[in-house]
Amino acid sequence: MNFRSDNESPVNAKIMQAIVDANTGFEESYGYDPYTLKLQEEMMQLFGCWCEVVPLTTGTAANSLATALSTPPYGSLFCYTDSHMNADECGAPEFFADGAKLIGVTGENGKINPELLDETLAGTGVHGEHECLPSAISLTQSTEAGTLYSMDELNKFKKIKQKYNLALHMDGSRIANAVASSGTSIADMTWKRGVDLLSFGATKNGAMLAEALIIFNPKIGKEIKRRRKRAGHLISKMRFISAQLLAYINDDLWLDLAKQANDLASEFYQQLKSTHEFIYPVQANEAFLRLNEEKIINLRQQGFAFHIWPGSTDIIRLVFSHCTQSSHVKMLINAIKSIK
Amino acid sequence: MNFRSDNESPVNAKIMQAIVDANTGFEESYGYDPYTLKLQEEMMQLFGCWCEVVPLTTGTAANSLATALSTPPYGSLFCYTDSHMNADECGAPEFFADGAKLIGVTGENGKINPELLDETLAGTGVHGEHECLPSAISLTQSTEAGTLYSMDELNKFKKIKQKYNLALHMDGSRIANAVASSGTSIADMTWKRGVDLLSFGATKNGAMLAEALIIFNPKIGKEIKRRRKRAGHLISKMRFISAQLLAYINDDLWLDLAKQANDLASEFYQQLKSTHEFIYPVQANEAFLRLNEEKIINLRQQGFAFHIWPGSTDIIRLVFSHCTQSSHVKMLINAIKSIK
Amino acid sequence: MNFRSDNESPVNAKIMQAIVDANTGFEESYGYDPYTLKLQEEMMQLFGCWCEVVPLTTGTAANSLATALSTPPYGSLFCYTDSHMNADECGAPEFFADGAKLIGVTGENGKINPELLDETLAGTGVHGEHECLPSAISLTQSTEAGTLYSMDELNKFKKIKQKYNLALHMDGSRIANAVASSGTSIADMTWKRGVDLLSFGATKNGAMLAEALIIFNPKIGKEIKRRRKRAGHLISKMRFISAQLLAYINDDLWLDLAKQANDLASEFYQQLKSTHEFIYPVQANEAFLRLNEEKIINLRQQGFAFHIWPGSTDIIRLVFSHCTQSSHVKMLINAIKSIK
Amino acid sequence: MNFRSDNESPVNAKIMQAIVDANTGFEESYGYDPYTLKLQEEMMQLFGCWCEVVPLTTGTAANSLATALSTPPYGSLFCYTDSHMNADECGAPEFFADGAKLIGVTGENGKINPELLDETLAGTGVHGEHECLPSAISLTQSTEAGTLYSMDELNKFKKIKQKYNLALHMDGSRIANAVASSGTSIADMTWKRGVDLLSFGATKNGAMLAEALIIFNPKIGKEIKRRRKRAGHLISKMRFISAQLLAYINDDLWLDLAKQANDLASEFYQQLKSTHEFIYPVQANEAFLRLNEEKIINLRQQGFAFHIWPGSTDIIRLVFSHCTQSSHVKMLINAIKSIK
Repeated sequence: MNFRSDNESPVNAKIMQAIVDANTGFEESYGYDPYTLKLQEEMMQLFGCWCEVVPLTTGTAANSLATALSTPPYGSLFCYTDSHMNADECGAPEFFADGAKLIGVTGENGKINPELLDETLAGTGVHGEHECLPSAISLTQSTEAGTLYSMDELNKFKKIKQKYNLALHMDGSRIANAVASSGTSIADMTWKRGVDLLSFGATKNGAMLAEALIIFNPKIGKEIKRRRKRAGHLISKMRFISAQLLAYINDDLWLDLAKQANDLASEFYQQLKSTHEFIYPVQANEAFLRLNEEKIINLRQQGFAFHIWPGSTDIIRLVFSHCTQSSHVKMLINAIKSIK
Repeated sequence: MNFRSDNESPVNAKIMQAIVDANTGFEESYGYDPYTLKLQEEMMQLFGCWCEVVPLTTGTAANSLATALSTPPYGSLFCYTDSHMNADECGAPEFFADGAKLIGVTGENGKINPELLDETLAGTGVHGEHECLPSAISLTQSTEAGTLYSMDELNKFKKIKQKYNLALHMDGSRIANAVASSGTSIADMTWKRGVDLLSFGATKNGAMLAEALIIFNPKIGKEIKRRRKRAGHLISKMRFISAQLLAYINDDLWLDLAKQANDLASEFYQQLKSTHEFIYPVQANEAFLRLNEEKIINLRQQGFAFHIWPGSTDIIRLVFSHCTQSSHVKMLINAIKSIK
Repeated sequence: MNFRSDNESPVNAKIMQAIVDANTGFEESYGYDPYTLKLQEEMMQLFGCWCEVVPLTTGTAANSLATALSTPPYGSLFCYTDSHMNADECGAPEFFADGAKLIGVTGENGKINPELLDETLAGTGVHGEHECLPSAISLTQSTEAGTLYSMDELNKFKKIKQKYNLALHMDGSRIANAVASSGTSIADMTWKRGVDLLSFGATKNGAMLAEALIIFNPKIGKEIKRRRKRAGHLISKMRFISAQLLAYINDDLWLDLAKQANDLASEFYQQLKSTHEFIYPVQANEAFLRLNEEKIINLRQQGFAFHIWPGSTDIIRLVFSHCTQSSHVKMLINAIKSIK
Repeated sequence: MNFRSDNESPVNAKIMQAIVDANTGFEESYGYDPYTLKLQEEMMQLFGCWCEVVPLTTGTAANSLATALSTPPYGSLFCYTDSHMNADECGAPEFFADGAKLIGVTGENGKINPELLDETLAGTGVHGEHECLPSAISLTQSTEAGTLYSMDELNKFKKIKQKYNLALHMDGSRIANAVASSGTSIADMTWKRGVDLLSFGATKNGAMLAEALIIFNPKIGKEIKRRRKRAGHLISKMRFISAQLLAYINDDLWLDLAKQANDLASEFYQQLKSTHEFIYPVQANEAFLRLNEEKIINLRQQGFAFHIWPGSTDIIRLVFSHCTQSSHVKMLINAIKSIK
């Protein structure tokens, strides 16, 4: 019973079928195939605006290319201190952006505090050439803490972005969970909030290896093709990535899968929140729960798999994925309730 | 009738089935799944020696990681002037190796001339800190010209490598075609010839997106994991790459597919070599033929797809792939013969 | 009356004379001149151990080369959050180290808190390839806050360095002020405390443009020559840099100049500490004083030049240099005392 | 009797005096001093146009910053195969330009053949994202071979630059020798020929350590300040560099010194050209002469110092500098004539 990571989940059957169906003879390589061309159109439909779709195979590639596009080597990007980009990508954004600086900003519930960001930016770059040029902000939606930036908060970041003339990136590794949870549209959550670059994740939510960098701002995106190639991320048989993404956004599959995961997380939270300490509000498909070590061992002995959060000994992270079984969640709830 | 590129070919049915079969519930991510572990073992069987297998999704990633492992930022790597690494990867090797220098060396038939390389190396690096440190040689086998380095030539490069204390990389984007054509084993062609790092290609020869960097020299390879991650090339659901590679090397599928392609190329060559000019000997799965412009137009009108070689107007490249149909090759031969 | 920066000070007369004296005909370039060779010997005398001396023209070059030597591209270096390297060098360390990560750690009085560093390190790098490899610590001595790490603190960092197997760099842009203030020897303060790499500053304390990277650990330093050259920091007529450094360390000139500056700072502190708020203890040649805006304006009108500290409106920084006049300091003290 | 390198020469007395004279009390640092401000004005007078002057301490820094400004990481710069930038700077241009590619082009007499460059450019970059973007051309004037690009040739490069929409850099490490030899003005030789970026050298021709990057094209140059800082090349006491450059261009000192050197080289050439083989025409301050090994040993025994050209055993390079003595040249001529 795997609550460890949505990265460990299998591929959704419809997406796998789309891969198989794309295997019909020769097709142009490097993104000139009909699947990729169609994806470009379908994504513009989904977002209701012009955008450039860059199919990729990892979220780190999407985030790092976004950094390279938005932040010059002598620039800085502001992100949450413990965000994936700053803490879990082994310096990939810095590598792609040729040594640019990531500056961590903190806040509650795994989110950047907009007032703190504003204050930090007010004091950054004023020392001219002695300091990196503030160039971009990156927000993760939903966050690694399983929380959501509200529309109100997103509007604040849009204002900050405009005030300091910065690019705005959104790490949407779990954007589907965010949109499904928020009740708004993906357009509302992204370009209408000033997002220039979106890492649109699909792998965690049912694809095999399919992510897309969505570029809403053509000026920022103009270098993307050569940057992708020189990072080794131009897939020759790209149709097999694009086919996954087409199936993923077709008929709202992406939202249905995310909703399933969110609902299970929510049920878990509702059942236990009065008796147990949750570190963060559960707003997407992850829950962080405090449990003592003995109980952790007990749960694992019963076959529940999950991570103890790095840096702690008594916080566990539970991830609910597109294919987590409802019965497993019920068993987990009962197990936690029944451990003394 | 596609003779444009093996990159445009579909996925072999056995490999596609292996992907589908790997889709069974949760598996550990980031290469700790049983497929990747098994691949590691099977590859050591195949090569008959210790090696580290790094599953990747593009050949450019494999070549560029190899460059980063073998060549420090202040170092230089010697390769064929028109090799893929030097001419077609948009500076990816330089990017991964943080600004290291690729130095092109020429020779006949798309191959580095070993004597010229020796001479070049003798005069390089002698100026101390004013020059990049000669660090690595890269050979492409089979070459972009559809030719092969002979065992004799490979032995010469091994000696040069030892003489100058360099690392030796082999770009094996089409290594299957080389092995199938040569009649030797892959061990004979690689680590027994001093190869430290092999880009083992599978995508062009029937996989969907599956390559592997094979590291024979643990000292050179020790940084690979963090380098892969920070390049965005650590695939979370790695089992789906490893499953392809397992199917690919199972029961000699890789060699069977390559042999089919080679045989068609060879037949084409035999039928036309007395009447037409071939730019290079046909030793793998590619043929470069001189044809006048009128004939080129005529062939295209008949539905044959191929590239005119960049920089020329009368040289066409024909690529024979794992799924090229014998009947198409016969039609092509007849078409060329019958055009006046 | 300049209290703005020791960077604005002129060149000490003995050092200028040494430059003039070095101008005698042809000498070998690129560091093979007798001045540089002698400097190498004299520095080993000064430090009482083997070391490699790398004459440079800027402190940023020294710090950044030290970062490149100690921290691989996929590594991280831990420094004080507001240190010069992290805040005032426009990403130079990241550039020289090909995208490595600087991780800021805070503490009181402009110094890293060793316990906090230990705790931070304990939680860093445990996530394997997903995180940068902790590789180095950098301490600034004396700090940008005009404070000193005590021998006790330095011993703690030595232990941390050993515990986590890290390199230890000291940014000694004002090392002379630190040594003069501490009463210990420079050997005691550096390599005996585990320092592997020292940025030995001279420019601020009387040289024209002369710094040296001192390498105590040959294993860490072995790449220095090519790294220096490719950063454009190999000075052809190096004798003119080395001659400055020779004069600087001759007859304890460096300590005498630093002592003068320290003494003036100390006098200033003693005279005002009972009536005015100092942000940090004054332990070297800088004082940070709280003054209201009106008083600041008044002082400036009287001809005193100094910086208001970035991010504040009522903190002024006063720097006492090797050539600050005692009479100017007395006038400054009186002026501050007399302003109501 | 040193004919080894102008890099080994002392500092001209007027320039040394200017350094001494600049040592008068406190001055603003980092280029806001009056010397640097005056230099900016004087250089615009000299060139007769707007330009931005960036004082630096090495030619490698000037060339490499120019590469970074003109060539993006995914771009390529075309230069002479054996130029200093490509062969003698240990990859510094590639480092500063974050992994961009230098593509060597050959030609006679140490100069790029413009027709070959045109042809090379016609075939480069046509493969789109698979190739680096052709971005800049760099010419060395005078060349490392002691030759000059004629006005005619410079006009051809201007046309090529415009045809392919490239930036044009001139490595003027010995630009004084070129201008003095050509009889044209420096304006005619640089921006009027389409040069966007000039590495204006002074060190070899009498300065201590003073070069300047001259930016004629503000669009290309806009990133210069942060790029200079993060390369560690922002000199704090910049007045001492600017003072050198001011003295250097005052009253045509730079041209007078270069003319002296050129005249000696020319006399050497005239005296020996009928009896000895010169590898290149002598057009500036260097001569390359073929001599057998025995004669080389003989000359050295007589006290003449020079380099044997790397890669050869019988070609010697003789460099005539701003302070080479006429009597030494006469002795050298006689010595060569009299050796049997």
